[in-house]
Amino acid sequence: MTRLHIFTTGGTIDKVYFDALSEFQVGESPLDAILREANVGVDYELTSLMRKDSLELTDEDRSAIFDAVSSSEAHHILITHGTDTMAQTAERLRGIDGKTIILTGAMQPARLRSTDAIFNVGFAIASAQLQVPGVYIAMNGRVFPAGQVRKDRDAGRFVSAED
Amino acid sequence: MTRLHIFTTGGTIDKVYFDALSEFQVGESPLDAILREANVGVDYELTSLMRKDSLELTDEDRSAIFDAVSSSEAHHILITHGTDTMAQTAERLRGIDGKTIILTGAMQPARLRSTDAIFNVGFAIASAQLQVPGVYIAMNGRVFPAGQVRKDRDAGRFVSAED
Amino acid sequence: MTRLHIFTTGGTIDKVYFDALSEFQVGESPLDAILREANVGVDYELTSLMRKDSLELTDEDRSAIFDAVSSSEAHHILITHGTDTMAQTAERLRGIDGKTIILTGAMQPARLRSTDAIFNVGFAIASAQLQVPGVYIAMNGRVFPAGQVRKDRDAGRFVSAED
Amino acid sequence: MTRLHIFTTGGTIDKVYFDALSEFQVGESPLDAILREANVGVDYELTSLMRKDSLELTDEDRSAIFDAVSSSEAHHILITHGTDTMAQTAERLRGIDGKTIILTGAMQPARLRSTDAIFNVGFAIASAQLQVPGVYIAMNGRVFPAGQVRKDRDAGRFVSAED
Repeated sequence: MTRLHIFTTGGTIDKVYFDALSEFQVGESPLDAILREANVGVDYELTSLMRKDSLELTDEDRSAIFDAVSSSEAHHILITHGTDTMAQTAERLRGIDGKTIILTGAMQPARLRSTDAIFNVGFAIASAQLQVPGVYIAMNGRVFPAGQVRKDRDAGRFVSAED
Repeated sequence: MTRLHIFTTGGTIDKVYFDALSEFQVGESPLDAILREANVGVDYELTSLMRKDSLELTDEDRSAIFDAVSSSEAHHILITHGTDTMAQTAERLRGIDGKTIILTGAMQPARLRSTDAIFNVGFAIASAQLQVPGVYIAMNGRVFPAGQVRKDRDAGRFVSAED
Repeated sequence: MTRLHIFTTGGTIDKVYFDALSEFQVGESPLDAILREANVGVDYELTSLMRKDSLELTDEDRSAIFDAVSSSEAHHILITHGTDTMAQTAERLRGIDGKTIILTGAMQPARLRSTDAIFNVGFAIASAQLQVPGVYIAMNGRVFPAGQVRKDRDAGRFVSAED
Repeated sequence: MTRLHIFTTGGTIDKVYFDALSEFQVGESPLDAILREANVGVDYELTSLMRKDSLELTDEDRSAIFDAVSSSEAHHILITHGTDTMAQTAERLRGIDGKTIILTGAMQPARLRSTDAIFNVGFAIASAQLQVPGVYIAMNGRVFPAGQVRKDRDAGRFVSAED
């Protein structure tokens, strides 16, 4: 049985620059490249669920994420996700029992020379293996339980909901 | 009180290319740059203990690391270290109580375009916060208790001691 | 007298990712960073003229570029520019005598891990020093005289106008 | 007939970090990767002649380079080479007529996040196409005729022989 199941949904972490459109858009997830570069020795499965900016995620999309995570046989789940509505998706997943579910993403695309994406994926993969079951957001070197976290757009980082 | 104390000791993760010597040598640690790039929201202190290839570390060096970690007020400790004798240093630190001590490093210098260093630092910083007190090596996406891990040079990764 | 005068006008080469806007926009030019990284031994002056996608450049903008280049004391001129209307700006500059004027840019932002920007700047700086006076576009490892070049959007590269 | 012939001989530009040896050594040349990343539209041929630090190059090696360049059908030649004896190899090639021969290299390996290699290759490929026949070194944003250039180790750059 696969130990760790990774789902990608899009967001800044996956963004690619399209010259033809003169803009960045969600592209193929760099997760597999990041894990190979780190020569990760954990048995994992990688599933691409969707390729969307998180502001465009619908209730149906969140239900699809819920169903995919629920039906996975793995107990350790990592979801990469856009940051703008990551807290909302984390809330939606709170009903799932017996799994450690970690959401992470990036403020700067993984394909930039300078990015938080690779650090965040490393941080999140440790969190997915070490936290007790529940739903969490792992960003900015911290782990926050779902429902107790928000994105502070001005500071450009995640903080406790009460901060 | 600082939550997380990071000690750097050298090793591949810190290597810089010196044109004048036509070789890579241990240079200034990139840890601070990595943590700023990830916009880490954890209160941490960074101490450079030494700049050595881990094959050159002496008993005195290991005692110095032991003393520095013991006398730190932080309960969460990260040590960056060369990979060749990381398991040996981890053993040496086993006597320290009440702290979670994580050793990590890299197979490829952090300053390379393609490196495991940034992933490993992210992974290790989560481990330092989430594991119960004890001494561990965090490499290749896994956490190994001290005394139960070895570097498999041929495979280029860390594995359980019994593998 | 400055040997080489570099003007930046914006375009993909200068793009930065703004998390707050969830998009890439023209930011501070990376030219100075690129030249320092290459440890360039040529005396140069760097002037930021504007920060625009080249599709947004107006006749007034092109007149401003014309005036800035005309009044520069340098005989060797490099202009970084968006690729979509680079050929049009090159045409506009054809009236300037006695200077070697090179336009370059990038299909992928300089701040990406994988980009054509750094190669192009190196290529263009050689061209600015070695070509006889005239106006040229230096892209994709080739130098094209103004009026004899177009961007082939499908191929993602510049080609001779008659191709 | 191939327009541009590129020969690689080793040197810092080609260095790779070998964890098993805990050192950087000359590895596979990154030239092809650099040219593909820049989406170069010039017809070129790439030949790996040797993989050596330039301090280890022998008279026989230089004769082999001489012969390879002489017998190439291309008129435009680029040679990547270690910097320490680049000036010496350039001198050795002065007898070859009718070809523009450019030597370049790097102070920092191409595989580093921060390197002069990519700029230098771009610069050298322009020089190989634009200079009149002769032997030149293209480094630090300048083109120097063979016999009129030396490496200033303290400054970490190439300068005119009389400087």
